[in-house]
Amino acid sequence: MLDDAFNDAIWHRINQKTKPLGSLGQLEQVAHQLAQIQSQGAPQAVKHISIVQPTVLVFAGDHGIADEGVSIAPSAVTQQMVLNFLAGGAAINCFCRANNVALKVIDTGILLPVESQHLDFIVQRLGGRTQNFAQQAAMALEQVEQGLDYGQSLVESVIDAGSNLVMFGEMGIANTSSAAALLASLSDLSVTECVGKGTGISEEQLEKKYQLVAKGVERTKGKSAKETLAEVGGYEIVQMVGAFLGAYHKRTPVLVDGFIVTVAAYVATLIEPECRDYMIFAHCSDESGHKKVLQLLRAKPLLSLSLRLGEGTGAVLAVPLIKAAAEFYNSMASFEEAGVTV
Amino acid sequence: MLDDAFNDAIWHRINQKTKPLGSLGQLEQVAHQLAQIQSQGAPQAVKHISIVQPTVLVFAGDHGIADEGVSIAPSAVTQQMVLNFLAGGAAINCFCRANNVALKVIDTGILLPVESQHLDFIVQRLGGRTQNFAQQAAMALEQVEQGLDYGQSLVESVIDAGSNLVMFGEMGIANTSSAAALLASLSDLSVTECVGKGTGISEEQLEKKYQLVAKGVERTKGKSAKETLAEVGGYEIVQMVGAFLGAYHKRTPVLVDGFIVTVAAYVATLIEPECRDYMIFAHCSDESGHKKVLQLLRAKPLLSLSLRLGEGTGAVLAVPLIKAAAEFYNSMASFEEAGVTV
Repeated sequence: MLDDAFNDAIWHRINQKTKPLGSLGQLEQVAHQLAQIQSQGAPQAVKHISIVQPTVLVFAGDHGIADEGVSIAPSAVTQQMVLNFLAGGAAINCFCRANNVALKVIDTGILLPVESQHLDFIVQRLGGRTQNFAQQAAMALEQVEQGLDYGQSLVESVIDAGSNLVMFGEMGIANTSSAAALLASLSDLSVTECVGKGTGISEEQLEKKYQLVAKGVERTKGKSAKETLAEVGGYEIVQMVGAFLGAYHKRTPVLVDGFIVTVAAYVATLIEPECRDYMIFAHCSDESGHKKVLQLLRAKPLLSLSLRLGEGTGAVLAVPLIKAAAEFYNSMASFEEAGVTV
Repeated sequence: MLDDAFNDAIWHRINQKTKPLGSLGQLEQVAHQLAQIQSQGAPQAVKHISIVQPTVLVFAGDHGIADEGVSIAPSAVTQQMVLNFLAGGAAINCFCRANNVALKVIDTGILLPVESQHLDFIVQRLGGRTQNFAQQAAMALEQVEQGLDYGQSLVESVIDAGSNLVMFGEMGIANTSSAAALLASLSDLSVTECVGKGTGISEEQLEKKYQLVAKGVERTKGKSAKETLAEVGGYEIVQMVGAFLGAYHKRTPVLVDGFIVTVAAYVATLIEPECRDYMIFAHCSDESGHKKVLQLLRAKPLLSLSLRLGEGTGAVLAVPLIKAAAEFYNSMASFEEAGVTV
């Protein structure tokens, strides 16, 4: 748990600002959490929250289960979208430009590899794509361990290079199936509570998706988080779980994106419960299981814009709210400073 | 009504972006609305939404009803907060800095005037403060007309100076009482549906507020919007109604802030229904009547952060979402451009 030695001092600072008590709502919670994180090990509560070089890491990976028709698109689209990210044409690029967020794209194992010398393209493939988890384990346990290491090392290097706020995004045709299977396996939620329409499948496809996810979930009974990742996970999801653990090791806050990223966050908390303290939840998407996993994490997200895109878009859209929370904590006048006599 | 000649062309442009259909949720609605506004009178639908020099105008005014104890603070605090705005120490200043929004502060009639040569301070007082509307009309009809003119002229000059996205904020001790009375007078809502706890009054004060607001509302039966503004309005509210009308005359979108500003927006639509087309709703606050007036306006706001501060803070916090919506509309690749084969 975060040392809460400065809990009261931080709230006092927030409550002395020239505003009615609590009137900045969720932004006050964000400021408090960031101040607490940045005060760890300090002699007193920080008076200045720093937000330096926010960075989103978009992990791309392909899924064998895509061949079953659980998505609106085939696996080849994952590669096409990776190329789109590298060319600057995707939604995540637009929002990174608008909000001054750095972007890196990681090939964790997409079906059709990409040749690129792009400086922000990182290749740490765990394989070609995962096996179809409705039929067999998606990957070997060794791949899980390797993926966790990859994700952790990468985020640690990004933080060492100067970023103190990180986000994770994903691209991978059929990865809501994998995320739903992980969630149903590692919680008391039913398969139907965890499975949603992804980017927009039909009712018929949804029925099929229920059945396929359930097949994977059947094999995970009594298994650990890591074993479950091997059974029904995805390469990008495994690396994101590792990334959450890496951010925790660096005591760095993570702004958590949509359904798939939130499931990775949840799995990370099963491996290391304390990493929850470093998570700020950016948004609630329209994917039906997202609300459920947010509840498991006792999270109240900042935005709810009916997004269902992934890529880290919801997280990057919330960055200005984080900066606004820091700004009021840092520079808003107190009643005494402003001579306000409430 | 907005000419919808380009309605389909704009949706086509949005739907050809490299994303699942509708997956950017409310941002797609914002982009569509902005593109439609900026396409008015053009030969074809704009391919570029411009957001230039977003500006928030904070209208401050005092209310005679404050002496009844309907707020947590006395009228003198309005002046103190105006000084705080001018010194850069308030929440609105922090959020303007964080989001690169210009700020102007207007004295519409605060109890204790301010001497200031600040370039962004504008004095257009309608009086000392309003009369106590629980006992008599808050102001004369001439003051309403003058206030509408002041607000309209000011926003038109801001737009003429280069801003193409404006926001209005307010500061005025007891102005939730005035806004609630306007709303109850000019809708089918009851007084108890319209009155809330403002910045944080007790249950006892709330009971008193119900009764005082009801007294004002009794006098407004059968009266027009302008007559009702005279009976129970406030100087800052009247000028904001004029500002909405001015933005409409300039065909300029307004990002609508909290309860009081939204009530001013509602009153403006009663005077000129077409100004609704130019409103984008920034947030839903914790003030109980806000949700009701948003429903009357058929508005789905972008943010819901449990704010209850005013000053235009919620509107300014939503500016990055507007810029993000413009950015994806302007620069996101189409399926064809990116070679994505969905």
